[in-house]
Amino acid sequence: MNLLLKEIRHTPLLWLLVFVPVVIILEQMMPHAHTLLFVLAVVAIIPLASLLSHATEAIAEKTGDAVGGLMNATLGNLTELIIAIAALQAGEYMLVKASIAGAIVTNSLFMLGASLLLGGLRYPTQEYNRAGGRLYSALLLMATIALLSPSAIADLDFAGGEIAVQRLSVALAILLMAAYGLSLLFSLKTHKELFASVNHGEAAGPVLPIGIALPTLLGVTVLVALVSEIFVESVQKAAETLGMSPAFVGFIVVALVGAAAEMAVAFSAARRNRLDLSVSIALGSASQIALFVAPVLVLLSYLVGPHPMDLQFWPGAVTMVMIATVVTCFITNSGRSAWFIGALLLFIYAIFAMTLYMIPPGSHGPV
Amino acid sequence: MNLLLKEIRHTPLLWLLVFVPVVIILEQMMPHAHTLLFVLAVVAIIPLASLLSHATEAIAEKTGDAVGGLMNATLGNLTELIIAIAALQAGEYMLVKASIAGAIVTNSLFMLGASLLLGGLRYPTQEYNRAGGRLYSALLLMATIALLSPSAIADLDFAGGEIAVQRLSVALAILLMAAYGLSLLFSLKTHKELFASVNHGEAAGPVLPIGIALPTLLGVTVLVALVSEIFVESVQKAAETLGMSPAFVGFIVVALVGAAAEMAVAFSAARRNRLDLSVSIALGSASQIALFVAPVLVLLSYLVGPHPMDLQFWPGAVTMVMIATVVTCFITNSGRSAWFIGALLLFIYAIFAMTLYMIPPGSHGPV
Amino acid sequence: MNLLLKEIRHTPLLWLLVFVPVVIILEQMMPHAHTLLFVLAVVAIIPLASLLSHATEAIAEKTGDAVGGLMNATLGNLTELIIAIAALQAGEYMLVKASIAGAIVTNSLFMLGASLLLGGLRYPTQEYNRAGGRLYSALLLMATIALLSPSAIADLDFAGGEIAVQRLSVALAILLMAAYGLSLLFSLKTHKELFASVNHGEAAGPVLPIGIALPTLLGVTVLVALVSEIFVESVQKAAETLGMSPAFVGFIVVALVGAAAEMAVAFSAARRNRLDLSVSIALGSASQIALFVAPVLVLLSYLVGPHPMDLQFWPGAVTMVMIATVVTCFITNSGRSAWFIGALLLFIYAIFAMTLYMIPPGSHGPV
Repeated sequence: MNLLLKEIRHTPLLWLLVFVPVVIILEQMMPHAHTLLFVLAVVAIIPLASLLSHATEAIAEKTGDAVGGLMNATLGNLTELIIAIAALQAGEYMLVKASIAGAIVTNSLFMLGASLLLGGLRYPTQEYNRAGGRLYSALLLMATIALLSPSAIADLDFAGGEIAVQRLSVALAILLMAAYGLSLLFSLKTHKELFASVNHGEAAGPVLPIGIALPTLLGVTVLVALVSEIFVESVQKAAETLGMSPAFVGFIVVALVGAAAEMAVAFSAARRNRLDLSVSIALGSASQIALFVAPVLVLLSYLVGPHPMDLQFWPGAVTMVMIATVVTCFITNSGRSAWFIGALLLFIYAIFAMTLYMIPPGSHGPV
Repeated sequence: MNLLLKEIRHTPLLWLLVFVPVVIILEQMMPHAHTLLFVLAVVAIIPLASLLSHATEAIAEKTGDAVGGLMNATLGNLTELIIAIAALQAGEYMLVKASIAGAIVTNSLFMLGASLLLGGLRYPTQEYNRAGGRLYSALLLMATIALLSPSAIADLDFAGGEIAVQRLSVALAILLMAAYGLSLLFSLKTHKELFASVNHGEAAGPVLPIGIALPTLLGVTVLVALVSEIFVESVQKAAETLGMSPAFVGFIVVALVGAAAEMAVAFSAARRNRLDLSVSIALGSASQIALFVAPVLVLLSYLVGPHPMDLQFWPGAVTMVMIATVVTCFITNSGRSAWFIGALLLFIYAIFAMTLYMIPPGSHGPV
Repeated sequence: MNLLLKEIRHTPLLWLLVFVPVVIILEQMMPHAHTLLFVLAVVAIIPLASLLSHATEAIAEKTGDAVGGLMNATLGNLTELIIAIAALQAGEYMLVKASIAGAIVTNSLFMLGASLLLGGLRYPTQEYNRAGGRLYSALLLMATIALLSPSAIADLDFAGGEIAVQRLSVALAILLMAAYGLSLLFSLKTHKELFASVNHGEAAGPVLPIGIALPTLLGVTVLVALVSEIFVESVQKAAETLGMSPAFVGFIVVALVGAAAEMAVAFSAARRNRLDLSVSIALGSASQIALFVAPVLVLLSYLVGPHPMDLQFWPGAVTMVMIATVVTCFITNSGRSAWFIGALLLFIYAIFAMTLYMIPPGSHGPV
């Protein structure tokens, strides 16, 4: 416990934990101060996500690479998943879908781009394991194709089309999860030597002992769930007040908040010349959201949502996901990086953010 | 002749030849038993296609690589071509187009994917000649761009648009055939050393002597033509009875039946670690359909069809061909393979098949 | 001066300079002979563009690689820029946009394709610096994504959409110019060793001394401006008379005329086995038009145009630019070339040209 407190004292980011009780208490006292609650919830989620990530890392360290990878795979996107389940229960399907697409785009363009830029400002050229980048890109490509298909069916506009889209979505969800499972079998078992990273980078700091990590993980998960609920309730109204379009909020704000913790780890790894880790986190996380989180949410919607959720996305969202995927395929092809490649990814992300920002709050087109 | 009978006796697939007379006789007796005729025609085409492929292989063996390649190129897709001409004469242009697009997608995703998976289950990693894969991908890319263009013109919806689409289709057909001719010149003559495959695999079984192969080729072609006619006549009505959408039949069923023989050869080559042959068959066949069979059908439609056929495809078909092409470009870039890459291609094919299956028979959108 | 005259005497292309005074005088005498003026303006621009290119080259030679590259970057597309400003002042925004998109497509498909073909007819395989090709392709990819975004906003069709498109266009213009500036910093300063070309080719002829080059540059620029104005005024009416669609004129004719000079240099370099130079000119020019000329025109439209110009392009234009970009990414990936790759690029360009030619002059869909 002392160690945990010491870690908190030495990590300025974790001082933000003080906002966790603040936001929870404030929500009871002033449930209509949406903008304030939104801002405080964002500030409170960041250190929680960071702790969650630390705890997960510590447990992964103990269990070895194979099981650790799987744990990382199932726990890494916990924040996103919890936020999305809260939105699912509230019937906010548009927000769920925007946050799924936004997370894929944010992870593969912003997180990867900023990692390559930050690493590239320190080292003239950096190398990373091509096999990993190519595997994740290929998985993203497959998931993008799956996302195109319900929209194509819906466009045909025949009688019973909605039921067909719903049935297709369930079938695609199962297919995506199967592909994800096989990709784990491939990268963790049958061909794990292809994905071994060369440890040329500097080591990270000490990790939490398992006896602290496990209870931390459980406790923080509960807190994230509480704060996420407040976040989801306040975000739409706060956005209106702040003049942001719902599309911008769902795609950019929610995605950046949800990925805050992973970003901290990915950026620090890039600056220690461990680009393999950065690429794994950024693209591994993006492909996990596409092939695991999204399908789980479709299936969960039958249990917790007011009605089933399908995989039909707004065409603009599918386009952005597809562009992010193709760019990623192109970029990771060489296994080498320099600062300009990172800058380029950030420019593309900026194009998306600017475009989404222009869509007025009243427009019902997008999200 | 004894050798041919011996080959038939030792190849269980060829026992299905018994269904060839059965389906021809049955068609005279019960011309309205569409579902039965459809099933029997499918079963009868498979061994015929296999014999056709054997005979072609045997002749290619004798004539040397350069001429043999050209022969394979002009004879390999004979089944598809004969089926398509039968459909052309019947004025079933939708079926013709669906089977063209379906054959491209089936060959480049299913045939290639299953080859890589089957090979990958035996050998941890397999290598193949990148140059071949890249040439075929590039040809497919060009053909896909050509397929986009008539739809783009038709979308502009101006007076005389149909005539423009028709004239453009003829011009594109000639262009595609010219490109195909030059690709043969390139791969068989000026740069043939780039495409030489390393013979690291195991040898196939013995081939038919030329004296048997040539008459077999001629006889089987006639039988394929007869059975194909029954197949085309029965397929649409049978599909309705079986609850399959016409889109699914045209894209998946016809394409799988038409490519049955090539698949047998490609899969057996992959399992003998001769991936060069598998890639050549799968992608060579796909690019030949796009750059040779489709243009020939457009030009032939002026002679045998009720009115000229254009190259304007249903947008969904163009999208699937484009996705298959881009995926192929991405996959063949490395020249290495493992089982998961094959599985991924099959998953993408499954997404297409599932989507097409959802389109109800009544919908006039797609095929 | 004697040297300049000698150069003109020895370069048959420069004899066409005689048409410069002819077209300028004729425009005063017969301002309505559009077709004649159009043809003469085309013929007069070609030698002017060639001289402009010579003079630029000579200055670049003196100032060293870093500054020379920047000069080439800012002066190489001078003809296009002057033509476009003339069209901008005339309020011919459709022509400006068509010529931007056409120049990107013509440079990356036709100029690159013809270079690879001409070089490949002399040398069986040619190698070039992959880093350059990949950088330009990546820049083009980013620019294409930027061009997609105003159309996406316009499609949402909300109140105030036009203002949003206009504001977004300005923001994108600034973003593109920033990316272009950083790409120069990257390729000319921080990572210039990556882009060093191996000088395995033959040397070009002697260059103009700086004392002649500088005044030539200034004088020719004025002449190009005068002739371009005549060209822009006559091109649309002449096209109608000649039965060409406006789409074909904007995309193909204007683009080929505007790039005439660069083509001469690129083709000659390819035939001397200096493919690095050809690739730099073709793709460097394409990416400069996308990331520098187009943004400059958007910003200039606030000063010289009747009303601001946005970056919203006709969907077909965006599609062609996107296809050209993806093809370029795919082609430049290997850093090796043979004649068939050049032929393939030319075939794709021919598909575009044929499609545009089919659009009737009366149709308001495209340009």
